[in-house]
Amino acid sequence: MAATASPLFERVALIGIGLIGSSLARRMRRDGLVRTIAVSARTEATLAKVRELALAEETSLDPAAAAAGADLVVLCAPLGANAALAEKIGPALKPGAIVTDVGSAKRCVIRDVAPHVPAGVHFVPGHPVAGTEHSGPESGFPELFEGRWCILTPPAGTDEGAVARVRTLWEACGSLVEVMDANHHDHVLAITSHLPHLIAYTIVGTATDLAQQTQAEVIKFSASGFRDFTRIAASDPIMWRDIFLNNRDAVLEMLGRFTEDLTALQRAIRWGEADRLEDRFRKTRAIRRSVIAAKQA
Amino acid sequence: MAATASPLFERVALIGIGLIGSSLARRMRRDGLVRTIAVSARTEATLAKVRELALAEETSLDPAAAAAGADLVVLCAPLGANAALAEKIGPALKPGAIVTDVGSAKRCVIRDVAPHVPAGVHFVPGHPVAGTEHSGPESGFPELFEGRWCILTPPAGTDEGAVARVRTLWEACGSLVEVMDANHHDHVLAITSHLPHLIAYTIVGTATDLAQQTQAEVIKFSASGFRDFTRIAASDPIMWRDIFLNNRDAVLEMLGRFTEDLTALQRAIRWGEADRLEDRFRKTRAIRRSVIAAKQA
Repeated sequence: MAATASPLFERVALIGIGLIGSSLARRMRRDGLVRTIAVSARTEATLAKVRELALAEETSLDPAAAAAGADLVVLCAPLGANAALAEKIGPALKPGAIVTDVGSAKRCVIRDVAPHVPAGVHFVPGHPVAGTEHSGPESGFPELFEGRWCILTPPAGTDEGAVARVRTLWEACGSLVEVMDANHHDHVLAITSHLPHLIAYTIVGTATDLAQQTQAEVIKFSASGFRDFTRIAASDPIMWRDIFLNNRDAVLEMLGRFTEDLTALQRAIRWGEADRLEDRFRKTRAIRRSVIAAKQA
Repeated sequence: MAATASPLFERVALIGIGLIGSSLARRMRRDGLVRTIAVSARTEATLAKVRELALAEETSLDPAAAAAGADLVVLCAPLGANAALAEKIGPALKPGAIVTDVGSAKRCVIRDVAPHVPAGVHFVPGHPVAGTEHSGPESGFPELFEGRWCILTPPAGTDEGAVARVRTLWEACGSLVEVMDANHHDHVLAITSHLPHLIAYTIVGTATDLAQQTQAEVIKFSASGFRDFTRIAASDPIMWRDIFLNNRDAVLEMLGRFTEDLTALQRAIRWGEADRLEDRFRKTRAIRRSVIAAKQA
């Protein structure tokens, strides 16, 4: 969808502004999607950076001040901060406002935020499935969401008009929008995103514990597979800590399946079961072809 | 090192010709590094492809015919084929010839090939640490080795002149050459290359076993981390089967460390140990910075 002539929202408040929040701000400003952007962050240093980058008309350490009078409030802080932030902004929200977020797990957002959303305010949880290994407001760019999915997980009974307005915003940012149940979202993302990150963090950590000399060689010869894991394992530590703690059940379930499969391959290696290994390695090629066909490669 | 005016070798035999062998052939031809290239492969179809791509002056189903009279013989087949190939070519090798290989594990190559190398012929095992997820002679390209490491693991007592000639060839292909002990090579590569591939194969396999509907969504939302694993897990099944079977001890040892570390993180997630998770995730960022600093990113 192309940029609209008149803004989609008059006043948007971004509560927290890292890679995702600042990319959203840049896109909204570039394409005139909103009239005014107010940003709240935890530190004055971050707000100074926001002003330096000209990402917002207003900046405040007080999330309630940013949220006051906003037509759209976007929670862009790590998942663990949501409950306290929602409690603070709740009383400041104006009737008819929409609250959304960008968190990578969705059941916990509904659990932490919904109780603080007053009657007459709409709550549309969202997850733009996009990112890089870089973090902070200086890492954002307006094309981050281009061609990527954004998943909305409105609880049953959410106002259709509010969902449509959030959808329109993400489509204007270049995203493909999908609506699904929060529970299903958390299950799918546990395997596509959370488990890969956990594994990458683990193997890079395993290498970190090797002797100094070996570690230097691991870095030297990292082009042979390891470097892809180092990129994933360079993602924001706080953000990922909160994802694992807040999507615990789904992550532990997928991790259980993964560990079983890894143990089976380990056994096949130990006992020299060539056919089993080859068979397993052949099957995974089909998924790669599907990823390429789905234009997500 | 620039291409030399006179060829480095008169006659080179490539025994097996997939991604690595064909990239080597393309580079050698492009830069006039050798006078004549003879290729042996298992099937007539592969040899027809080699002729179509004009990768060699001679093609033969008989590895001994290709190796006869060669100054340099490069074993480019999967590791599991080396023992039988070495047995076949051994009697055909001319005095003063050099035998090398491109295998991803090195102790097994010494074990399988050295007994068949006659006196007066030099054996210099090698491993160009380069590759893509594509396989077959049509996937090669002359720049594959540019800026990448090539590790040579000559057994104690190997002729220095022979090692120097193999080094010069790889440097002419754009590689940085390092000489190390085969045992150490297998240990380092187990963590930088073999374990990452095993893990990627595993998690993509885990996803393959999910319900059809979920699997479609895993592909749809794969940009969130999973797709990087699908690329690695699309690597050649036979080549990787042979690597795991032939570097078994080192892979199982690294896998043991990895599993311990994963179990510790799993426990931290289950018991909500936020500090432990954050601490672990912070440490891995340092390795990423080192990889970037080493220009291997």
